[in-house]
Parts: sequence; structure tokens; C-alpha cells
Amino acid sequence: MERVYNFSAGPAVLPEEVLKEAAAEMLNYNGSGMSVMEMSHRSKTYQAIIDEAEKDLRDLLNIPANYKVLFAQGGASLQFASVPMNLMRNGVADYIITGQWAKKAYQEAQKYGKVNKIASSEDKIFSYIPDCSDLPITDNADYVYICENNTIYGTKFKTLPNTKGKPLVADVSSCFLSEPADITKYGVMYGGVQKNVGPSGVQILIIREDLIGEKPALACTPTMMNWKIQTDEKSLYNTPPTYGIYICGKVFKWLKKLGGLSAMKEINEKKAAILYNYLDSSKLFRGTVEKKDRSLMNIPFVIGNEPLEEKFIKEATKEGLTSLKGHRTVGGMRASLYNAMPIEGVNKLVAFMKDFESKNSL
Amino acid sequence: MERVYNFSAGPAVLPEEVLKEAAAEMLNYNGSGMSVMEMSHRSKTYQAIIDEAEKDLRDLLNIPANYKVLFAQGGASLQFASVPMNLMRNGVADYIITGQWAKKAYQEAQKYGKVNKIASSEDKIFSYIPDCSDLPITDNADYVYICENNTIYGTKFKTLPNTKGKPLVADVSSCFLSEPADITKYGVMYGGVQKNVGPSGVQILIIREDLIGEKPALACTPTMMNWKIQTDEKSLYNTPPTYGIYICGKVFKWLKKLGGLSAMKEINEKKAAILYNYLDSSKLFRGTVEKKDRSLMNIPFVIGNEPLEEKFIKEATKEGLTSLKGHRTVGGMRASLYNAMPIEGVNKLVAFMKDFESKNSL
Repeated sequence: MERVYNFSAGPAVLPEEVLKEAAAEMLNYNGSGMSVMEMSHRSKTYQAIIDEAEKDLRDLLNIPANYKVLFAQGGASLQFASVPMNLMRNGVADYIITGQWAKKAYQEAQKYGKVNKIASSEDKIFSYIPDCSDLPITDNADYVYICENNTIYGTKFKTLPNTKGKPLVADVSSCFLSEPADITKYGVMYGGVQKNVGPSGVQILIIREDLIGEKPALACTPTMMNWKIQTDEKSLYNTPPTYGIYICGKVFKWLKKLGGLSAMKEINEKKAAILYNYLDSSKLFRGTVEKKDRSLMNIPFVIGNEPLEEKFIKEATKEGLTSLKGHRTVGGMRASLYNAMPIEGVNKLVAFMKDFESKNSL
Repeated sequence: MERVYNFSAGPAVLPEEVLKEAAAEMLNYNGSGMSVMEMSHRSKTYQAIIDEAEKDLRDLLNIPANYKVLFAQGGASLQFASVPMNLMRNGVADYIITGQWAKKAYQEAQKYGKVNKIASSEDKIFSYIPDCSDLPITDNADYVYICENNTIYGTKFKTLPNTKGKPLVADVSSCFLSEPADITKYGVMYGGVQKNVGPSGVQILIIREDLIGEKPALACTPTMMNWKIQTDEKSLYNTPPTYGIYICGKVFKWLKKLGGLSAMKEINEKKAAILYNYLDSSKLFRGTVEKKDRSLMNIPFVIGNEPLEEKFIKEATKEGLTSLKGHRTVGGMRASLYNAMPIEGVNKLVAFMKDFESKNSL
């Protein structure tokens, strides 16, 4: 099979030119005589790679000087513990539950302190984002936590919650670098890179300096999860996932060449509109979330008839439209339209859906 | 510069044929139409990759059925906390200190319980392995900890310590798969793969089943470090470092084709002997550790004259013999002769050293 259009929710499609460059450099990076995989993380060549990756990321997101950038490991799931371990100085935090990942973060944080669920959309299977303009923020909360884009359910915060002065901690794994963001509105922005940025196994954190104390909040924090040590060592406390960071760096360059995050947002809006407009007009398929909260990245849709959904997924796969199965906890279909999904992929998907609709009815 | 002979202590040289295969498959793995980097970790194609990697590893090390294999993240440094968190049911452990990494593990474990230093070679800058045949093992110790091969100092345990029935936990990062091992002698064998096995960012653990309780020993253990959950989920609790595991799988196949770990050991002994024999005969260079404890993997050596050492490293680099600088905490030189270092590389290094010796004297 030729290259397919891969709608996987993550790990996910990467820019073809990034993969081509990586392949070409696999045995000999930039005249170094070795693969980036084989390179000491203490070498000058590697230092230049990670420094440039950080610089390009800072450019893309316009990260202020009082924010530290950290390349880490362990996925968002490890940060579910790192966040309370580092930040829970009062032992209290507020969580807004808009999907499975926010819920998992909330459950994990309960190991480390008093955790309040201050809003949730679980009543309607996480199909909307609750109004967060005036929530009962806890007086001594160390932070307010959200998952900004919900990969499984396909919703996104279009307005950040009013945290009433408390630091906002946001897991942005599935919307990272998909559009501009005002970093100053966040205490901590973090995400796994395996959706919009690179291969799995790299985690990027952007942390407001004053939130990093001399020590983490909790004494039981493993050194590897200690933000003070990790940021002081500039992500090189131990061997980082060197190859993954190198691929992220290439994706940052690709984004800059494209025109940065405003240009990327425009493309992402165009792509999502093609699919949403069709869903809104279709008699067979329908979207599952409230229109105002629709994600540009993850678009779940259903027919409401399981055998027909299976048929759809099977036939789409044959056409080179792959990984369209919805999350195992939800069912139906989901098309993830991350940065690297070309517009041709969305056009081909919608053309196929129209054709399928013309041949199948409920 | 053409491909060099890369003596880096890690990340380190990988088999050229593995890199060539990875480059060839970068845009389209096995007809899937996508890179392994782009592939859902829940896809059948990826499941086959990780299953086969585990199977090949089990074959290579002859891992008994009552041991679990785990692909994790965070490097050995994160395991320095995971080990006590999972195993310290009595809150007590014994550590043998033979280098910086064992020392770091010992220091980290002190956060979580009572930790005894039962032997150390720090008195002679870690240049030997202490006699561990009759140590004062603590009655209620949950485990005895070693770092089996000391990357920085170039020593290796040739005989495992007598743990008097307590489970042995061994960090094997820098000797992993360099020779056969009797897994039944270990409670937990673990290591980062970035020396002998693959790119940094993957950690392999081999854990005796009965040491994995229903819950970790400590309630503060992050879910990502919970061995019960991680092994129940077969390394797929969250998104693992998929691409790194794929490269490890290729290295396992390369080792099997070579004849397995006995064949690998023979080659490693041959390579190390070339360098050690020369060091023992040289009037300029000398090895730094006790002969009986010499590592096959990491061979530190010195001239004892800093300007001459700098000159040596500089001229060697020009000849395509790279990353020979000793660890920043030790100085001098170090040649790491991991599995993938071809014998030609060692021959070229020794020829260059002889030439250098003939032209330079103290």
C-alpha cells in the first residue's frame, strides 16, 4: 500500500518532508558520521539540536522569558502525578472534568492531596464544555486543572476558565501547536508530542518560573519528576529521549516555514470546516458534540448503526483512509485532523463519505 | 565525514543494518502506508511489533515464564524511585555502591525507606568490585541492589553478590544483552536501552512475578510507576515510546541472527582483549581498574598528562575515532565497546594508539 491518509488520534501523521529528512539523515546526521540515535546527549552536536528545538518552540508560541521549557518523558500520564507533586503546596487543587484524560488526572491527584471537582460534563457523555466563567474556585487551591482539547470526545475549550487568579494547568496534548496560544494565561502548559509534534515518548512542559520552588511541594517526588532539578539541568539531568526531541525540532522548523501558528490555525480551520459542514448536511452521519465546543483536531461522528459503521470503517481502510475507528470507550468513528494531515486527506474522506451515504441508508 | 567509529558511552553506536532498515521503512512500514512513528499503539500492526520484540528478548535471555517483561520510560533514573516504591514492603533495602549510578540509586531510595550501604568501592575511586560473598545483608531487607556494569569506571560484577536469599535488583543498563545471563538469579533486572539495545527513552524491566504485589509497596507511587498496572497492561497502559521499542526489536533480531548472546559474548571478549592487551603492554597508556573486575563494555584509560590526553582525543577524532573523552567526573579517555562496535573499530583505535605512542612520550 502507498502512503495512506492516517486519521489516528495518536501517535499520528507526521509531515512527509520531516520523515524524508529523518530517513536521509539516519546513518549520518549533518556530517557527524553517526545517527542522532547514536549520539551522546552531552555532545556539542546534540546540544545544538536540543537548543535549537527549544528556541524554535519559543518563537512559535512566543514564550515569555519567565517561562521554562522542559522536554520530559513518561507521557501526560506521568504528569498527572508530577503536577500535584510539584504544585500542591497547600495540598488542594480544583479540577474541571471534560473527558477521560481530565478524569484520570483528577483521580491520580487524589493520591497527593484534596482535589475538588468544580465542574464536569460527564452528565452528557462529555459532549460539551461547561460554562467556566464563574466557578466555585477553592480559596486556597494551588491550581486549576483542565484538559484543553478532549481527544476522545472531540471538544475543546474555546475560552479558558476564569481561575480567579489561581494558576491554570492545562494538558494540551491533542491541540499543542495547532493554533496560537497566549502563554501568559497559563501557569503550566504541557502535553505529549505524539499527536501534533513528534513520536511518542516525549513530553513538553512550559512552566511559569515562580511556580517552580526550590523543592517540589511533596517530599516523595522522584528526582526525575522534580521540575526544579529538571529545568535547572535544561532537560539533561539524565539521558533525554534524544531522537524524539530531534524529530520535534524538525516539526517546529516545518511549522515556522509554513508561517507559524496563525497560518497553521487557518489551515486547521479550513480542514475541520470541510468535515463539519458535511456532517451538518448529511442524513447518514452526524457529529456528537455541541457545535460551539467542537475541536479542530478530533472529530468524532456516528451513524448510529453498528454494522453500518463497521462496514464504513472497513471500506474506508481499503481506500487508504485509515484509523477511523472511534475510541474503544465510545465507538463510532473519529477523524483526527492534526497539523500534518493534508487537506487532500480531508477532501478524500468527505468524498468517500458522500459516496458511502449515496449507497447506504438506515 | 563518513560513518565514524563512535566510542560513546551512551547513546551509542547501533548496528548499521538496523539503521539502514529503519531508514528504508521510515515512510512506509511493511506496506502499512505509514511510519512506525505515525502508528496508533493500539493498532494490530504495532501490537505485532511489540509482541515480537518481547518474544525475541525472551528467547535471547531465556526468560522464564514467571518473569514479566516491561517496556517503560524515564531512564534508569526514574527506576531509582520505582524500585523502592514498588518493593519496599518492610521499608528496608541494602545497596552495594560501585559507582556513581549505584550511589544515585542509593540516594534516591533514601526518600522512601531505610537504606543500608552494605559495601562500597568508593575508597579507591570505584576502581574495583568489592568481595560480595558474605556481606551483612539486613534481616528484613526487601532487596539487595547493584549496578552490574559501571559505565563511568569500567568495572563489572563477574560474580553476582550472595544476597542470602533476598531478591537481587540489578541495573544492567551498560551490559544489557552483551552476554548470556541467568535470569533466575535476579529479582529484577532492568536497564536503559541507549547503550546496547536502542535509542534513549526506552527502559526494559524483567521482573519476577511474585515481587509484583497487588499494589506497590508505597501509596504515593504514581500509576505510571506501578509495576502491577504496567505489567497487567503489557506496557500499553498509556502510549509507550513506540518508535524506540521498534528499533530495539530490530536489534534483538540482529542479535539472534548473529547467534544469540553466547556468540555476542565471544565477539565482545575478543574486542575487549585487543584493547586491554595493548593497554597492559603500553608505556604511555594504562587502564584504571583492577584486572579481575574489568568491564567488556566500557574501558577507561589514561596517560596521566592532561595536555597529552587532549591531544590524543583531538587527533583520534580527526581519524574518525570519536567520543573517546572520559566521563566529566573522571577525565582521561574511555572507549565503550558495545555490541554494535565492529572489531574493525577496535583494531583501528589500537593501531592509532600505537602510532600515537610512538610519536609521543611523557
